Amino acid sequence: MSQRTPAQAAELALLLEVAGTPKPGNVDRHRDLDDLRFEHFLAGAVGARPGLAAAAAGDPVGESFERAVAGMADQRGGNTQFGALLLLVPLVAATEGDGPPSRDAVERVLAETTVADAAAFYRAFDHVAVLVGEPPADAPDLDVRRGSDAVPDVEARGISLAAVMERSAPKDGVAAEWSNGFERTFASADRLAAGDGPILDRTADTFLALLADEPDSLVATKHGDDVARSVSERASTLLDAPRADVEAFADDLVKGGINPGTTADVTAAALYVALQRGVPV
Amino acid sequence: MSQRTPAQAAELALLLEVAGTPKPGNVDRHRDLDDLRFEHFLAGAVGARPGLAAAAAGDPVGESFERAVAGMADQRGGNTQFGALLLLVPLVAATEGDGPPSRDAVERVLAETTVADAAAFYRAFDHVAVLVGEPPADAPDLDVRRGSDAVPDVEARGISLAAVMERSAPKDGVAAEWSNGFERTFASADRLAAGDGPILDRTADTFLALLADEPDSLVATKHGDDVARSVSERASTLLDAPRADVEAFADDLVKGGINPGTTADVTAAALYVALQRGVPV
Repeated sequence: MSQRTPAQAAELALLLEVAGTPKPGNVDRHRDLDDLRFEHFLAGAVGARPGLAAAAAGDPVGESFERAVAGMADQRGGNTQFGALLLLVPLVAATEGDGPPSRDAVERVLAETTVADAAAFYRAFDHVAVLVGEPPADAPDLDVRRGSDAVPDVEARGISLAAVMERSAPKDGVAAEWSNGFERTFASADRLAAGDGPILDRTADTFLALLADEPDSLVATKHGDDVARSVSERASTLLDAPRADVEAFADDLVKGGINPGTTADVTAAALYVALQRGVPV
Repeated sequence: MSQRTPAQAAELALLLEVAGTPKPGNVDRHRDLDDLRFEHFLAGAVGARPGLAAAAAGDPVGESFERAVAGMADQRGGNTQFGALLLLVPLVAATEGDGPPSRDAVERVLAETTVADAAAFYRAFDHVAVLVGEPPADAPDLDVRRGSDAVPDVEARGISLAAVMERSAPKDGVAAEWSNGFERTFASADRLAAGDGPILDRTADTFLALLADEPDSLVATKHGDDVARSVSERASTLLDAPRADVEAFADDLVKGGINPGTTADVTAAALYVALQRGVPV
């Protein structure tokens, strides 16, 4: 069994996620985007660690998340792992002892989030530009793009971080994990654990399976539901395809500027759970 | 200026080093060796951090190094960054405030190493198999391959870690850095800082310049001085060559099992100094 702490395992999960290849549309071991390169993800993962360690030490989820994002943003690529950290922080907070967090423990962590956690979540948007969809029509004041400017409105509404996520769940795959008990995260950890071969190959397989399983919400936000659906349909035809076909798909998506970032976020979260389950590197 | 702590910068240096490509003969972003893969270096860097943080906190150099190596070894690839850590630990220990360590501060750290530091250095060899040359004929009891078994002899001789390094310097490029005030490390940090373009490209350029400059001592230990010299001669013809030629050289060395590991160690150390000087990622 590894001697890694949960914060170390979470950081390693971020590193393995970006190194897994081919991961169609995203930065991976063999692909950069124009202004978002592999080294930005390395620095983002290293920078996030103090926030992850804070979550492991029992600091509030929102505050730990904001700290992780501030550290992550300490590189020139911009947003590298915001969504992944939004999954990893509660998973780390729910981890007790050496093993993986139980789904019950994760549910408890989410249920116990407060208005202060929600406020810290909004403040995290001050550190880095994050592509998100329009806010719900009934709550324009809760637009996360307002960052810390929205905090008084969050406090006036008395809304917890879990409740903020609940509102976003229909259109955001990361928020959906919060609302469904990290269902895809834990299922993907099972897949990672059941696989054989090098962990980076398993990472790529898991990413493709997740993409095939459900349209990526970041792609939907940026390019519309039809594009997101067609990307997932193509992914589903490639699950048993020769690797060269998956590489070609990856190149096509990068060329088209189509980046299934939410799928990468869930992959990173699944890697954390798998590492805590003892999957070796 | 980055908010990274010295321990974070040192870990990031390890990650940037392995990601730099092409880095002829070594694991890099685009190349694995048979049993030593990219992910082993990622896990090694993450695992080393507590030892690096101990060095930053003022713990003894030997103890910090042993701790870093024990954490580094927590993956299945074996020795990934032993030599790099032997350079990074004193550099981190010599770092005060936000900037890079001065060469004077590094010299002081080395000069202050003790017999206890030497003993911890020997114990570090218990954690991982390291390829080293034969011990000096006059001191077979100081063979590092004996690991902790050699500690009573180290103590009986009353030899400091700096003195251990002094003995190894003629045949070991990492030990030579200890003996010459980290000359190649600081010169390469200058090169990294003077370069432009993405940091991973500068990393590859710096590695090639170091390899051209001096035969790699790990290659000499494994394949003999003639091979080490001819590798460096070929590197020196490629300093201004098209990238494809360097890629071909990299593939040749990997095929031949020729891994200039010492050159990679110095590159990692130079990256740390460059990051502390404010070279951006």
